[in-house]
Amino acid sequence: MIIASVALLAVVACGSDRPPGGTGDDAAGVTIDRHARGDLSENGGARRLRGDQSAAIADSIQRSGARNVILIIGDGTSDQEYTLARNYQWGAGGAIPGIDELPLTGAYSTYSLHKDTGKPNYTTDSAASASAFATGTKTYNGAVAVDRSGHAQRTIIEIARANGLATGNVTTAAVQDATPAAQVAHVTNRKCDGPVKTAAKCPRSAVENGGAGSITEQLLATRADVVLGGGWQVFGETAAAGQYRGKTMEVQAKERGYRIVRSAEELRAITRVGQREPLLGVFADEDLPRRWVGPLAEHGAATRPAVRCAPNPGFTAATPTLGDMTRKAIDLLSAGHGAKGFFLQVESASIDKAAHEADPCGQIGETVQLSDATSVALAYAKKHKDTLVIVTGDHGHATQIVETETDTLGLTCTLLTADGAPMTVSYATATKAGKRKQQHTGVAVRVAAYGPGAANVVGLTDQTDVFFLITDGLRLDRSKR
Amino acid sequence: MIIASVALLAVVACGSDRPPGGTGDDAAGVTIDRHARGDLSENGGARRLRGDQSAAIADSIQRSGARNVILIIGDGTSDQEYTLARNYQWGAGGAIPGIDELPLTGAYSTYSLHKDTGKPNYTTDSAASASAFATGTKTYNGAVAVDRSGHAQRTIIEIARANGLATGNVTTAAVQDATPAAQVAHVTNRKCDGPVKTAAKCPRSAVENGGAGSITEQLLATRADVVLGGGWQVFGETAAAGQYRGKTMEVQAKERGYRIVRSAEELRAITRVGQREPLLGVFADEDLPRRWVGPLAEHGAATRPAVRCAPNPGFTAATPTLGDMTRKAIDLLSAGHGAKGFFLQVESASIDKAAHEADPCGQIGETVQLSDATSVALAYAKKHKDTLVIVTGDHGHATQIVETETDTLGLTCTLLTADGAPMTVSYATATKAGKRKQQHTGVAVRVAAYGPGAANVVGLTDQTDVFFLITDGLRLDRSKR
Repeated sequence: MIIASVALLAVVACGSDRPPGGTGDDAAGVTIDRHARGDLSENGGARRLRGDQSAAIADSIQRSGARNVILIIGDGTSDQEYTLARNYQWGAGGAIPGIDELPLTGAYSTYSLHKDTGKPNYTTDSAASASAFATGTKTYNGAVAVDRSGHAQRTIIEIARANGLATGNVTTAAVQDATPAAQVAHVTNRKCDGPVKTAAKCPRSAVENGGAGSITEQLLATRADVVLGGGWQVFGETAAAGQYRGKTMEVQAKERGYRIVRSAEELRAITRVGQREPLLGVFADEDLPRRWVGPLAEHGAATRPAVRCAPNPGFTAATPTLGDMTRKAIDLLSAGHGAKGFFLQVESASIDKAAHEADPCGQIGETVQLSDATSVALAYAKKHKDTLVIVTGDHGHATQIVETETDTLGLTCTLLTADGAPMTVSYATATKAGKRKQQHTGVAVRVAAYGPGAANVVGLTDQTDVFFLITDGLRLDRSKR
Repeated sequence: MIIASVALLAVVACGSDRPPGGTGDDAAGVTIDRHARGDLSENGGARRLRGDQSAAIADSIQRSGARNVILIIGDGTSDQEYTLARNYQWGAGGAIPGIDELPLTGAYSTYSLHKDTGKPNYTTDSAASASAFATGTKTYNGAVAVDRSGHAQRTIIEIARANGLATGNVTTAAVQDATPAAQVAHVTNRKCDGPVKTAAKCPRSAVENGGAGSITEQLLATRADVVLGGGWQVFGETAAAGQYRGKTMEVQAKERGYRIVRSAEELRAITRVGQREPLLGVFADEDLPRRWVGPLAEHGAATRPAVRCAPNPGFTAATPTLGDMTRKAIDLLSAGHGAKGFFLQVESASIDKAAHEADPCGQIGETVQLSDATSVALAYAKKHKDTLVIVTGDHGHATQIVETETDTLGLTCTLLTADGAPMTVSYATATKAGKRKQQHTGVAVRVAAYGPGAANVVGLTDQTDVFFLITDGLRLDRSKR
């Protein structure tokens, strides 16, 4: 297979006085370093570019046709959330490792559909959003890989599996949470994580009614090679019918051949996976703990002294980081039966969950985890240039950086950044005064990529394009069973 | 020298069986159409891409080195504001004409500096922001093309003028407003629009104190070939000293050789400009009227019936549209003495002003004007491929699309979009309950481009990079006087 680069200038391709850089099919040669290097007060001190980048950007463009794809999702992460994390952790002139090194960038629309009318719902939830990029089909908020009528839509992981690729699904949330679920299960309500809620909320899916089961049961049946995250609690629930009737999800997983690990140490010990013995790593009863803690945003709190975030003492050595999970998943999928390549989805889930709670430190710490995971993926892709890495959010969130030490109508918090300067963040999409829980926003969201086909994220796309970009890029037969 | 290697690359650029598209230096051949074409409820119906875009994106990359640059600014316009306008006017699956047709996209950081500490101020105003992209120097909020110490920083228009290019400066605000001012004047306080305020707030700049004068006086001295906007009121002020002592700014302009037009009809009649007779078009006492009107966002208003925006009856035929002004400026600058090319800045200013007032229809109407201006510029650039078009915002704003018909802590309004669906927008960065005026936000802002050097906007840049991208791209000697 030829990974062919596509056109640069005629003068370049016909062999003339082109500037130094990569060679078109060697995107690994392109270095994207977007830190400001100078005194920010001086002319040119804040610039991020050093000379014309046209050749470097052109060199980073490789024709579609990847062997491996790593799709990394920051839940609830748009430019506001990236900017907050960048300013805090790396400074205003800094750059987010991994994420800001991706050469090609754009934005995609995230709207979902109203179940009743089929018209756009301008503010998606994570279920409709993940369904859109996992299946290429827009659906209603709450739907997991089913269309507006409730019909199952095939997912990237299902199609990749059917085409013989190795697959993985990694998250810092419960493995049954909306984003990972939309790759491996089809239910009409995202809450149907186990048999109990499925009986009540998704009766057509319940095994006792002849359905495919809860998200957990479908996850086990879909049989990705690597599944890592939280959600152990649901594995204590018991199947109500079928082959595994009366047995817990844990027992079912074991009987289906899964190897189960419950700690970072156990995860490190795993050296191979495959369809005979897929890996199920479950490291928390519900979501994994967040890496950082700090003060929650409050009404009228912008003028309180600026604070730094702190490590979360609840994040112990038993919990793998998202970077660790990503590295292990890549190691296993690339070394395993993946002669045909692999597809891996990685989610930093609690950027969203912390933003819902107006918890800026929780949010930023999980964005740092997103950065770490991206750096791991990018390092692999630079060594294996047939690997496409895509990093994006699934929807915007409430986060707004506002005038320093200025209160708004919402909840505010002032942090002390890497620049040694105060930065005030506001969350004001809660539906009622006194209510903490913030809503999503409907903004188009940044998408960035590296590798074969990465240029397809440039400009305005839709999140359903991601499904086609990946399945076409991997040359998958979408109808293959 | 490296000869770009892959067979296909040579084949492509040297002309053989390449996929359809341009020829690398013929970006005019690249068509970017990002409307969804299908039934949004069906698999693939919402996708914006039709097949691999790698070749098209690669073809759109031209080495830096433009003859003309058109820099178009949406004041207070980031992805939230674009998404609001896109959903309303073109539908969720629609695309903004001009803007969403630009092939190459990225985001830039917008922070300014605190005057006292020199550390980042994470939420810029339009003066510091415009100073950054006009001069390449970060400065404090309120500063107009001076650095943190108050020293004048040369602007793109000044440098382009010194290098023999034709120049233009178009806005829907007063011509003395921060964004246009930062290209033609140097004052320590953006309020110093005429001699009166300059005496009080910028005494070192006052002519009577040996300074360069107010923004208006410096604008006249800088002598761009085309200046269009509002701000006639200030032209009634009188110079306090110097050559034009006792004369109004209007008289001064005429004595300096400017041709003044005051209506769309008079503007249409102009067929040439040049340094002997530059054009000054001033079409309103202050800012130009906005094209659209509608209900202001209010507390608790999300559940009111969804409304459509209406044309503003105050926008009469006497007022030129931003598209008209842009077309005329391009016609004049390209036909005039511009043997060396031209630089034109165009601003849709009242996107910001309407967002400050939580006036969604005003804001969207001015985003439509931004789209119109971009379409005009892009049409010119497609015919004159030595023209670089850059479209960006100067900072983020309060706008948030929230769950439909859901109130927030802020001011809300529900609009009926082109999809025939309700969309709720919230503004919640006002500093006090009951106060209407919204603050800016500190988000990184979308930047998009077409033409030679356009690839330099891809990924994360800073707004100061725009200054270097343009002056380097035009091959200007930045030290030339």
